This record gives sequence, C-alpha cells and structure tokens, in this order.
Amino acid sequence: MKVVFTFPLKESLREPLEKRFPQLEFVFSKEERALEDAAVIVTYGEDITEEKLQKASKLQWVMVASAGVEKMPIDWMKRHHIPMANVSGIHKTPMAEAILAHILAQARALPTILQQQREHYWNQKVRSTEIKGKEALIIGPGAIGQEVGRLLQAFGVRTVGCNYSGQPRPHMDETVSFRELSTQLPTADFIISVVPSTDDTRHLLTANHFEQMKRTVHFLNFGRGDLYKEEDLIEALRRETIGYATLDVYQTEPLHENHPYWTLPNCTVSPHVSSHSGKYLERAMPIIEENLTRWLDEKRPFYNEIDLNKQY
Amino acid sequence: MKVVFTFPLKESLREPLEKRFPQLEFVFSKEERALEDAAVIVTYGEDITEEKLQKASKLQWVMVASAGVEKMPIDWMKRHHIPMANVSGIHKTPMAEAILAHILAQARALPTILQQQREHYWNQKVRSTEIKGKEALIIGPGAIGQEVGRLLQAFGVRTVGCNYSGQPRPHMDETVSFRELSTQLPTADFIISVVPSTDDTRHLLTANHFEQMKRTVHFLNFGRGDLYKEEDLIEALRRETIGYATLDVYQTEPLHENHPYWTLPNCTVSPHVSSHSGKYLERAMPIIEENLTRWLDEKRPFYNEIDLNKQY
Repeated sequence: MKVVFTFPLKESLREPLEKRFPQLEFVFSKEERALEDAAVIVTYGEDITEEKLQKASKLQWVMVASAGVEKMPIDWMKRHHIPMANVSGIHKTPMAEAILAHILAQARALPTILQQQREHYWNQKVRSTEIKGKEALIIGPGAIGQEVGRLLQAFGVRTVGCNYSGQPRPHMDETVSFRELSTQLPTADFIISVVPSTDDTRHLLTANHFEQMKRTVHFLNFGRGDLYKEEDLIEALRRETIGYATLDVYQTEPLHENHPYWTLPNCTVSPHVSSHSGKYLERAMPIIEENLTRWLDEKRPFYNEIDLNKQY
Repeated sequence: MKVVFTFPLKESLREPLEKRFPQLEFVFSKEERALEDAAVIVTYGEDITEEKLQKASKLQWVMVASAGVEKMPIDWMKRHHIPMANVSGIHKTPMAEAILAHILAQARALPTILQQQREHYWNQKVRSTEIKGKEALIIGPGAIGQEVGRLLQAFGVRTVGCNYSGQPRPHMDETVSFRELSTQLPTADFIISVVPSTDDTRHLLTANHFEQMKRTVHFLNFGRGDLYKEEDLIEALRRETIGYATLDVYQTEPLHENHPYWTLPNCTVSPHVSSHSGKYLERAMPIIEENLTRWLDEKRPFYNEIDLNKQY
C-alpha cells in the first residue's frame, strides 16, 4: 500500500520510517499523479484540492502534518467518509515562546531600542512597562493557548480563556464562552488569539469588539487571519482604538507588498513563522507513525482525528 | 533634621512621606549647598563625590535609591563610619522581564522579522529556535538572577548559578563558584551576568573565558560594564567566537556615538534601561521609609545595609 508524502523528508527521518513499516511503500512527491494510487496522503494541508482527491480512488485517510485543516476539501471528505488527523499539539513550544517574545519585546520597548541603536542614539527615555500584574485574554485555550497561559502565569499575569463552551481549561484563572467575549474586552491588557479557522471563529471579532478593547491593548493573532475582517483591524490601528497588534497570520498569505499592515507604526508583521523551530518534523513523525500503526492494526479513532463537522 | 533627596519626587510620593515623618525636613535639590546640613542623603548613587561628603558635616547615613553603589566614595564612608543602604531587590521584575524579552526575541528572530517588515519582505526562512531544553549560566544568582532563573525554568531551561561561594541558590538547578566558572562555559547556551561591580567581579571574564564559550552562545550583561575589558568582548564578537551579545551596561555611559558596539551586527545595545518601569519609585519608597523609621528608632542594621567591605 502506498503512502504519499506531498513534501520531502530528510534521510534521517525517512529511513527509520521505511524500516519500521516495511509493508508500506513510501513515496515523496508533489506530483498530482503520485496521488492516484495513494492509500494515505501526508500533507501540510495547503496543497490538496477536491479535484486531486477525486483521482485518488484508493485513498483511505489523510494525515495533515500541520494544525490548520481549513484549506482541505472537508466537505468532499465528509461525503466520501475519508477520515483525517493532524499534528495539533506539536506547535505549542515554539508558538508559546514566540508569543511571549512579542509580548515581552513590546513591554520592554525592544523595537525602540533597536531603532535607537541604528541611529547610535543613547536615550534612556524609552517607554518600558512590566507585564506582571496585567491581564491576558486567550481566545482558544487549547494546547497552544494553555502553554501561553502557563508561561504568562509564571510572569504573574492573570489569564482568562475564551472558548466555544466556556468550560474551564488548565492554566486559565477563568474561562468564558465565545458568547461572553465582550465582557472580557475592556479589562484585557493582552488579547491573544490562537484559534483555528472554523465556522465558529470566522469573523468572530467585529469592529465593535475592537471598540471595546483598552486603548493600550496589545492584540496578537497567531491563529488564523479570518478571525476578523482585515479592514476592521486596520481601522482600529489607524484610529488607535487599540494600542498595538502583532500578527503572524493573514487573510491572504504571503501578505501583498502594498498591504497597509507593513507600514502601520503600531503593527508588527510576522510572516507566519511562529510555529517554526528546528524540531518541527522531529515532533510530527511520532504522531504520523502512531497513526500509520493504528491504521494497519485497524484501530480507530486516529490520534488527533479531526471532527469533520467541528473542523478541528 | 534634614533629609536631602538629590532627585525630585512627584507630589503623590512626596506628600505621604512628609505626612509620615513630620519631625523631618525634606529637601529635594541637586545643589551641593543643600548637602551641607543633611543628616541623610537619598541619591541614585551617581552624583556623590568625596568632596561633596566632606562638606556634609552632619551626615549620619546614605540611602541609595538604586542597586549599584560602585560610584559612591566607599573608602571615605568606611573611614568616617557612614553606613549606607540601597534598594536592591526592587529591580527584579523589570530586569528579569527585560532579560527574558531579549533572550526570546533573539531565539524567535524578532530583529530579522522587524527588518523584513521595513523592507515589506515576506520571507519565512528566518532562523527561529526554541529555548526549551537549553542551558543558562547565571553569573550572580541574587534577587534578580533568581527571578531570571525562576522564569527560565518555567520555559524548561536548565539553570546554573555562579557566585563567589558556590553555595546553592533558589531556582538554580546547580550553583558553582567563581573559581569553577570555566567548567560551565562550554555548555551554556545563554550566559547572563547580573553581578554588581565589586573587587571580585571587576574583569572577572577574560578573553580566555570568551574563547571557551559556545560559538552560538547568547551573552547578556545586565550587571555592570566592568565585568570584562571591553576590547575582549568586542574581539570575541568581531571574530564570532561567541554568537551574540545583548548589553545594558558599559564601562562608560552614555556610550560614545562612535563606540564599536553600535554597529556590530551581533550585538544589541540597550541604553541601561532594563530596570526601568513605571513602578520604580513606588517600590523604592517603602524601603526608604523603612530605613528612615529604623534610623529614628535607632534600630540597626538598616534594611539592605551595604557591607562596605564587600560593596554590596
């Protein structure tokens, strides 16, 4: 049976895989043809279309080596009963470190310090603050959100999680539901989104929500770019309704070179790199191998199997 | 009796002080004359000379509203039995947050991300790493160093403290003595100095020490600029014997506009602002008030009284 990776694997990861599953044929190819007799497709989740899957007549399931599955042809997969799993959970360390890096860098005026250095300008009047004693609203307190919460709590920041159900989550001092979101906006010093793109989160934040935030709030979006209409966030930044935004995700990526985000003085553009680290595939492979094993042993559900209705 | 502050205090801090100590006369003045009949001098520790103190014939003790006392005329004070206290301990929150900000910003490639933004350049090949699983050597595991250690441990970083005695300190996985410093240099990913300037720490780090560090090490000096001869650090950065340096302290401050540090591509110049935060004096005042009370009650030692022989 054929397992097709739509991306290359370095030898140190490929060899142990082939050794562990001698009964499987592994193919590493971006070619559409390769999918034709694939029993399993392993993909980063951004290169698979309905058209491609229609030709994959032997397909049994799909493994997404990423967290976001919103670009997968989910409706088609639902209709054809093709299950899917992802590697959700492996991103928490680099992403939480990146989010803390941006929060602390802003608080401690690092962009100003770097700017002054370029000008050889010794100026001690930089606006530094402390994050200790502040409040963070974490939209999406899942694996990544909880790790962010755990670290923020170590810094003495109060954490409020916000999820669909409002059910309590670890490392959150409080958890509220999406419906109660508005109640938390006026007091949050940091608003951090790490939610996936689903029917419930698409345009969850409105212009009105930005109006309710603190004028000093540092807003960070490390989830998906369709959490709001971009024009609403741009307007809030232009009018300084909110203090600062750090973005790692966008409605369209790569971001167009004339996009307003690049030049807004109160916005940091991170090119969707917060999950990167030298350890990405090293952490993804055990999940991929676990699911290959479950499949061969006919044991379901898969590890991290996606609920195709909830889309995460 | 006269208490002379050599710096101004805003009304919200001055009024409660005057109200609490009606028996004392508070003067806020940089003028040398004001010191003449001072019983107590409250200073940031950088404006007092032996000449000035010689005229302060009524002086009983000195309160330094800072952590570093190396610019005070300590020998003169020793000879004249003038005790001194400082506000050591109040800097730990902003300084630890600043140190973590710089460590995480480097690890997550924030300077590169900011540079790319200036160029409207979407490039995902930025070199991001994780700090989890790495090792930090903390030279001077006192109040600030321990707070840095506590936070680094939350990120999963192994912490090694290095102090004069080698006695264990909280939030250090291991503590070694200054004599054993060399043994720790080859494995440390982060080397963080927060030691004061004393006879034991002046030029503690030599050219040879920099040679022993990892070529990828991120070295951070947030203690005092005379921990090494500047030419040794500059040489190590130029030859890339070490990976990166983030400096908040210098042999001469402000840093001269032609100093090599400004332009070294592997060096961040922070203009001695890591202890800044809106809460500085708010935290210093209770210590100053406590010591005024001990003085009036004739209760010694002062809180945070300096050992004039050890100089900290």
